[in-house]
Amino acid sequence: MSNIPTEQWAQVIEKSGYSPVIPATVYKKIPVAKPGPDEVLVNIKFSGVCHTDLHAMKGDWPLDRKLPLVGGHEGVGVVVARGDLVKEVEIGDHAGVKWLNGSCLSCPYCRQADEPLCPDALLSGYTVDGTFQQYCVAKAAHIARIPKECDMEAISPIMCAGITVYKGLKESGVRPGQSIAIVGAGGGLGSYALQYAKAMGLNTIAVDGGDEKAKVCKELGASSYIDFTKTKDIVKDVQAATDDGLGPHAVLLLAVSEKPFQQASEYVRSKGVVVCIALPAEAYLKAPVFPTVVRMITIKGSYVGNRQDTAEAIEFYRRGLIQTPRKTVGLSELSKIYELMEAGKIAGRYVVDTSR
Amino acid sequence: MSNIPTEQWAQVIEKSGYSPVIPATVYKKIPVAKPGPDEVLVNIKFSGVCHTDLHAMKGDWPLDRKLPLVGGHEGVGVVVARGDLVKEVEIGDHAGVKWLNGSCLSCPYCRQADEPLCPDALLSGYTVDGTFQQYCVAKAAHIARIPKECDMEAISPIMCAGITVYKGLKESGVRPGQSIAIVGAGGGLGSYALQYAKAMGLNTIAVDGGDEKAKVCKELGASSYIDFTKTKDIVKDVQAATDDGLGPHAVLLLAVSEKPFQQASEYVRSKGVVVCIALPAEAYLKAPVFPTVVRMITIKGSYVGNRQDTAEAIEFYRRGLIQTPRKTVGLSELSKIYELMEAGKIAGRYVVDTSR
Amino acid sequence: MSNIPTEQWAQVIEKSGYSPVIPATVYKKIPVAKPGPDEVLVNIKFSGVCHTDLHAMKGDWPLDRKLPLVGGHEGVGVVVARGDLVKEVEIGDHAGVKWLNGSCLSCPYCRQADEPLCPDALLSGYTVDGTFQQYCVAKAAHIARIPKECDMEAISPIMCAGITVYKGLKESGVRPGQSIAIVGAGGGLGSYALQYAKAMGLNTIAVDGGDEKAKVCKELGASSYIDFTKTKDIVKDVQAATDDGLGPHAVLLLAVSEKPFQQASEYVRSKGVVVCIALPAEAYLKAPVFPTVVRMITIKGSYVGNRQDTAEAIEFYRRGLIQTPRKTVGLSELSKIYELMEAGKIAGRYVVDTSR
Amino acid sequence: MSNIPTEQWAQVIEKSGYSPVIPATVYKKIPVAKPGPDEVLVNIKFSGVCHTDLHAMKGDWPLDRKLPLVGGHEGVGVVVARGDLVKEVEIGDHAGVKWLNGSCLSCPYCRQADEPLCPDALLSGYTVDGTFQQYCVAKAAHIARIPKECDMEAISPIMCAGITVYKGLKESGVRPGQSIAIVGAGGGLGSYALQYAKAMGLNTIAVDGGDEKAKVCKELGASSYIDFTKTKDIVKDVQAATDDGLGPHAVLLLAVSEKPFQQASEYVRSKGVVVCIALPAEAYLKAPVFPTVVRMITIKGSYVGNRQDTAEAIEFYRRGLIQTPRKTVGLSELSKIYELMEAGKIAGRYVVDTSR
Repeated sequence: MSNIPTEQWAQVIEKSGYSPVIPATVYKKIPVAKPGPDEVLVNIKFSGVCHTDLHAMKGDWPLDRKLPLVGGHEGVGVVVARGDLVKEVEIGDHAGVKWLNGSCLSCPYCRQADEPLCPDALLSGYTVDGTFQQYCVAKAAHIARIPKECDMEAISPIMCAGITVYKGLKESGVRPGQSIAIVGAGGGLGSYALQYAKAMGLNTIAVDGGDEKAKVCKELGASSYIDFTKTKDIVKDVQAATDDGLGPHAVLLLAVSEKPFQQASEYVRSKGVVVCIALPAEAYLKAPVFPTVVRMITIKGSYVGNRQDTAEAIEFYRRGLIQTPRKTVGLSELSKIYELMEAGKIAGRYVVDTSR
Repeated sequence: MSNIPTEQWAQVIEKSGYSPVIPATVYKKIPVAKPGPDEVLVNIKFSGVCHTDLHAMKGDWPLDRKLPLVGGHEGVGVVVARGDLVKEVEIGDHAGVKWLNGSCLSCPYCRQADEPLCPDALLSGYTVDGTFQQYCVAKAAHIARIPKECDMEAISPIMCAGITVYKGLKESGVRPGQSIAIVGAGGGLGSYALQYAKAMGLNTIAVDGGDEKAKVCKELGASSYIDFTKTKDIVKDVQAATDDGLGPHAVLLLAVSEKPFQQASEYVRSKGVVVCIALPAEAYLKAPVFPTVVRMITIKGSYVGNRQDTAEAIEFYRRGLIQTPRKTVGLSELSKIYELMEAGKIAGRYVVDTSR
Repeated sequence: MSNIPTEQWAQVIEKSGYSPVIPATVYKKIPVAKPGPDEVLVNIKFSGVCHTDLHAMKGDWPLDRKLPLVGGHEGVGVVVARGDLVKEVEIGDHAGVKWLNGSCLSCPYCRQADEPLCPDALLSGYTVDGTFQQYCVAKAAHIARIPKECDMEAISPIMCAGITVYKGLKESGVRPGQSIAIVGAGGGLGSYALQYAKAMGLNTIAVDGGDEKAKVCKELGASSYIDFTKTKDIVKDVQAATDDGLGPHAVLLLAVSEKPFQQASEYVRSKGVVVCIALPAEAYLKAPVFPTVVRMITIKGSYVGNRQDTAEAIEFYRRGLIQTPRKTVGLSELSKIYELMEAGKIAGRYVVDTSR
Repeated sequence: MSNIPTEQWAQVIEKSGYSPVIPATVYKKIPVAKPGPDEVLVNIKFSGVCHTDLHAMKGDWPLDRKLPLVGGHEGVGVVVARGDLVKEVEIGDHAGVKWLNGSCLSCPYCRQADEPLCPDALLSGYTVDGTFQQYCVAKAAHIARIPKECDMEAISPIMCAGITVYKGLKESGVRPGQSIAIVGAGGGLGSYALQYAKAMGLNTIAVDGGDEKAKVCKELGASSYIDFTKTKDIVKDVQAATDDGLGPHAVLLLAVSEKPFQQASEYVRSKGVVVCIALPAEAYLKAPVFPTVVRMITIKGSYVGNRQDTAEAIEFYRRGLIQTPRKTVGLSELSKIYELMEAGKIAGRYVVDTSR
């Protein structure tokens, strides 16, 4: 452990709120933390930047967070130290630090492998310091195991975006050969969803707006594309895109607007499943009772994946089935990414390099 | 077949609408129908009366129906004739005619045992003549098989009310030892739901209003009772009624009002299931996206049961685990039941005796 | 129906037993049967030839069959007549006649979509005349629906071989991304299994013997190949072929020898599933109790698919994901195929053309 | 922690083997161990005695164990100390120490809640010291949480026997209203299995030998009883005991002889499940391939439960649904229990009281 510095570069949120003029996150040197007996210290090399990081900075979610705070929860790097109780991780292992930094491993949720529902979960870049720093602490039992053959830069956004859509696809209960509509297919989450769905043998109906998105979706393997800016009857068009015209077996909602949450239950197949993942602000799920009952529709929320979902999502990547379209900048430039994000100008995923 | 009369008594709806002054259903003699090659003729002895029958008479549902129409879909009687292709039913067998009079048995839904979702389903007392007559035709493959040891009068409401709640309990995915809140537990459907849930090893939290309902629920085996007219915080109270305070594993919505549809997702346990069965007029399911996603809540509709659900629901009855609190009157008095129903004055279930 | 002849060519088994000198199946003209009210008449164009047909001819299975008998249960052709009750099939539709010619659609198995377990099932080419004739009768509810864009010759072996392995893959419970060992991967069933498994997003460990089989397996998408004639420790080698060395999540047994049935439970992963499909004569499943219990291994039998499995297996074919390596000869030459089969000289699948 | 003594009474196995003349387990004073940072120290009050303890003493299993060894894995007592990392357990809590003393909580099995399959599992009374002492160490995440209203003496055998049969019932996949045959229903495991099955809404067919066992089984709620010493055709008799004569939906094998393992697949219903729990020495599962495949039978092993199964099994007890017929003696008399066990003279369960 002699090579671990005592100080490091980090992006630190020191107060709530956000203004493009006075950046709320400050690039500065802070001490390197020491791992507890059941923790590891990871030398973060790259970290994806997620919309949630913007919320963490703004403090506009109804969920308390640490302050001052180092954000970030899509970090990948090298284990450089470990606590006395840690046996299953070796110094030098590659590891991912994800949204779920730790959980109690004992509560009714944890003991059924639903760690994301643990009431005592630690959230990276939210309730504990995250991955926008060079050295990050995480519970050993919760780090993602990254095979050394995987590119750390490209895999970093899998830590949140990839795992989340993979989990949603599993929660949909859709089997190989069946169909799923992916709403918001051309965005960051959607791009991963299309690739995972294809690798899982599913037929995908991409729903998004504009010709550029159409091109992206087709390239990523979408079976068909519905442009919501052009369709006159989205229900009819989505159903027509399925082989038997009965509609897709499931719908994955990745768009941050409320309307799709209310259309999906109309075009999903009878006994189909609508999976909600995106979190449009103050939005409501709404569906008329009569058709929902007589058509036996299921509407469900899906949050981030558990540790097993994480391992599986990574394995798909390792097999070369998932690509990450991305732009990479230095950690010092994080504020510029937030500016673009706030302006809605990001296509694909941004990654920060902690070495600069 | 020599004993089958050519004429019989029936209650016939001749036009849409409903007025307490001029009954829309007429008690009169009509011809006895002949079964087709894959059908049976059932000499109906008793038939339960369901809220749906009132809708069928009024014609106020967005679903076309036959006119003139013999209503009724909870009929039980004796098979007196069968078509040439029918081998699995014997003359003299006891049989139930239920809401699902027949289905194609070939479509993507039927071949997965989801006959209630068949687009060509025949609905007793709605798209084909039902059980408010002495002799009713039904598809042989769809009749409910009634063991001769079962009382035909008492079992008749199982044909719809019983099967429906049993199906809902199965759809909830709740396992023995887990807990379920039953909203509207003191009503007709609720009374069955409490009994089935108990027989399935579930812990039941009955939700309804008033002391009389409390008494009924406790007698039927409810583990606890929440009075929605008295509680100050239904979410807190329902959750407190579970062993670990995390809320019930599922909720069964049997109340014909909209509000419970919107509270249930708040008090159900994280990763719990809200099952909607009741059909309050023009009601909407509505749930905020954020907690639904991060708590991984499932909201689903459950319609009537399939043939296997039917057989299972009957078997619980046969074992003596289910009672039917009821009042029985002559078929000729059907209009009076509708009057009480319209006035909201029915507690328990009404059954009509076709012999008078 | 004016174009339907009264006579047709067929291969007829007139007595039990088999001798290469005196063929037990005779190519001759027989009357064309008429469909009953719930049946269709299919003008068979092509029919695959299955090992079961040889057993049907020899009469060496402990299951009674019709005599004289027209064998065959992988037939595909055109619907030319239908009974009065048949509504869902049109004259001119393309249809497959499979092992399950019909079932009661009412028993406890049929009503749960387990038609293959129906005690009154009709078996094509075994208890009713099959597809080695130009015009074959089948229950309308049970025919396979063949999209017109599909090649009838190439799809015919899907009717039994394809459906059977697809069903087995579903029964294994393996999810996309997981691994399955396919024992007998280079044979007729195995070739389909490899392709279906790949299309379902599974990683396949092909187990078979010899370099030629190795080549076939790799071409069909096997992730790895274990040669049982060369390996010194099959348990070790199969487990080493999985990413984490814990062994495959499931094993599909397609080999007609007993030994693999007894090795599979050793190399399958703890909590894994061994699916038995092949029927080696008088073979036994055998596994030591201790490791089976403490490793929580599941061993299960999988028979032919139901109607839904059939539709799904065909859909994979329609999407171009499944190829059928085959040789096609005239129906008149059926005896020669049996000779090769008896001699163990068949690689891939034989198909007969009923026009010659 | 001032009240914890430094020495305590324990039963210590000092060498392998067993002789009724020279007891292999010695009642003596040994030091009290100290819990590690993630462990607790439990003051054991009562411990059930299991057949496995006899094997641990004899050392006749193909699995290495600690020596010298304190046996026992059905202990219940009071938490008197905890390590620094332990937050979820309080001093004074009642806790059970079970076969699974600890596991890594990180491996592919643990992270899917299959802790019993963890390759690094610690086994109480086998690889680590167990509950035949007054103060026992266990991993905090693995102790069973015992509600204070539960009698510690009566609940102790639930820690292994109860959990194991409850797990087996869950693994059978049998739903309320379905039937299960329990082979060895009159023994220690069987008595629990009958009670749990009844509480889960299952119909139980008890299979055992003799009139005394018949009486016990009926009292514990068995729907029917088959005496294997009297039946002339066990397959026929078990099937006849089900409502439709098709056989039970599942079979639970608790008998320590090989024969039932080979009969069960014959009488279980088509598509039924045979669950193996008992571990008769050197026994084999054996089933003919043909009927297993065409009837789609599943045969599976079920080991001890995970932490969630534990909590659920305890909750059934807490609700008053499970009784423990038992005899209780002092810990000092443990050798006498082994003598009776070796002689096959134990009916019901023995419990030791560590205070004498």
